[in-house]
Amino acid sequence: MDRSVQQSEKLSAQSLRDLGSTAFERLGVPLDDARLCTDLLVMADLFGLKTHGMSRLESYGERLRIGGIKSKPMIQIERVANAVIKVNGDNGLGPVVGMRTLHATMGVAREHGVGIGLARGSNHFGPISPYLYEAAQSGFACLVCSNATTTIAPWGGSDARLGNNPIGFGAPGPQGNHFMLDMAISVAARAKIRAALRDGMAIPSTWATDEQGLPTTDPAKALDGFLQPMGGYKGYGLALMVDLLAGVMSDASYLTHVKSWVDAPEEPQNLGHFFLLIDTKVLGPSGWLLERMKDFVQILHASEPADATRPVLVPGEIELSRMRERLRDGIDVDAALLKLLR
Amino acid sequence: MDRSVQQSEKLSAQSLRDLGSTAFERLGVPLDDARLCTDLLVMADLFGLKTHGMSRLESYGERLRIGGIKSKPMIQIERVANAVIKVNGDNGLGPVVGMRTLHATMGVAREHGVGIGLARGSNHFGPISPYLYEAAQSGFACLVCSNATTTIAPWGGSDARLGNNPIGFGAPGPQGNHFMLDMAISVAARAKIRAALRDGMAIPSTWATDEQGLPTTDPAKALDGFLQPMGGYKGYGLALMVDLLAGVMSDASYLTHVKSWVDAPEEPQNLGHFFLLIDTKVLGPSGWLLERMKDFVQILHASEPADATRPVLVPGEIELSRMRERLRDGIDVDAALLKLLR
Repeated sequence: MDRSVQQSEKLSAQSLRDLGSTAFERLGVPLDDARLCTDLLVMADLFGLKTHGMSRLESYGERLRIGGIKSKPMIQIERVANAVIKVNGDNGLGPVVGMRTLHATMGVAREHGVGIGLARGSNHFGPISPYLYEAAQSGFACLVCSNATTTIAPWGGSDARLGNNPIGFGAPGPQGNHFMLDMAISVAARAKIRAALRDGMAIPSTWATDEQGLPTTDPAKALDGFLQPMGGYKGYGLALMVDLLAGVMSDASYLTHVKSWVDAPEEPQNLGHFFLLIDTKVLGPSGWLLERMKDFVQILHASEPADATRPVLVPGEIELSRMRERLRDGIDVDAALLKLLR
Repeated sequence: MDRSVQQSEKLSAQSLRDLGSTAFERLGVPLDDARLCTDLLVMADLFGLKTHGMSRLESYGERLRIGGIKSKPMIQIERVANAVIKVNGDNGLGPVVGMRTLHATMGVAREHGVGIGLARGSNHFGPISPYLYEAAQSGFACLVCSNATTTIAPWGGSDARLGNNPIGFGAPGPQGNHFMLDMAISVAARAKIRAALRDGMAIPSTWATDEQGLPTTDPAKALDGFLQPMGGYKGYGLALMVDLLAGVMSDASYLTHVKSWVDAPEEPQNLGHFFLLIDTKVLGPSGWLLERMKDFVQILHASEPADATRPVLVPGEIELSRMRERLRDGIDVDAALLKLLR
């Protein structure tokens, strides 16, 4: 392959995994962990979640290099009750801590019908959809959330004290058509505001405020200010719920105790995650839930679209259809990322 | 007391409980269940959630009288895995099914650190805060949700196919200052639209659409149309998550299968609820979590308010301060409700 090509290239998922895993190994990450991390990031790329895919190699790699993230953490899993585990990620890569917690919690849920896993000492753990997909493939319904660097003000407050904490929920559907909801709490992501700034565009006044807490349409001022939660005080409440589960109860950092990986990339963030796994096979006879899931989706699809060109969708449908397409046609990888990978 | 008084009266919580419990007994409800239901509704009144308090005696009573709700249900609790229970409410009063499910799930969580309870065959189960309060008082963190009659359209759809499904989360705080988030998915409640209609006021265009799916400021048209979810497709996704947990996985009705208690008050609704209970004492040494909760709230309170007269609050604070006030001064009970109670 010609390394001087400046355009993007299509790679198979497996080629991207091989390149990614080798790149993480070169950064000092043991092979098993490199694979775990890469599998998750490539899954994000398959789902079309490009900002949360292999492109993260750059920021993860930078922090690995300066010691902000440990390449060889001693991850400890402690069972504190029959169906509850606490995980100390020892400042390892977020996707490694996240996936190890997911797998251990799946084991607990297989034994007891339900299990929760609370992880601390972690970092950015990628998007939530790959965790949901992996759980659903094994028959688990799954609630996942994580706290994050502060970008949102308390409702009625005037400075950023909580993160744009993501929350996701998945449930197994028929023929791999799983339900996968993966959302952050803000009306819009900071990445969208950065894109508007890059493109010289104004942003809607509902997305963010300036640093005085006043709504703004200027992306530069918005990036100095803070994000607005969806639904006002309701979104504020949900972001707090996530931080209580993922941060406070897990013994991780929370609210303003979370370090910013931008301002202090060399310091451990001590992020926390929460996983709830439900083994759906204990809920009813074989096939029972899949029948209900099928009917559930059919009812939603049968709603006449307000705009005839845009049929009603269910969370996860877009990502899963992109995955099928990319598994067939390959994943578009930017030249800059390819260069980094090679 | 003079029964002809037309204004409201202040009653002590205990007097209101006694009157309510007797009223439910007269409707054929056994004493234990009457007390369980009344305790929850009076708790709602203590929290200032008037529309979800003893005022519900009227609609609950009407459905009990015409056989839409069973006064003497055979509630069955089945343990389907070590830490999972399924409850068949047998079309009993929602607060009775809800509270029995909460208590049984607390027992499971005490054994295994975490437990989930999935209830079907239920009805409107009151507001969520009383469940959160009861769980928090015993040291449990708690996620509760329920499905509901369809009032919201799928995102991009044009007819009501999902409920304004409530979701709540609670965690024990120091000195009874528990975190209690209790919210429905819509931007605004139908009760607020009904109030606007009664008062001849317009509503914001973001609250609801008319029956064609177009935003409206006319409360009458809004009541013929459907509610808008907060955060657009994100709120749509959350409402679906709730229905999957509370309706699909519990073996209750879901989406359009849920009967409307307004259009078909004599038919069982078969609503479903979901309870997740976490025994916080397994998470850390005694006092550890309460210290963290205290710090969590202090960080939020310390954010300078954007409006100096409105300090930053944490979910549950308003309800708990109203409770203290009403326990001291009594609960304001409308004359019409008093008449019904007596």
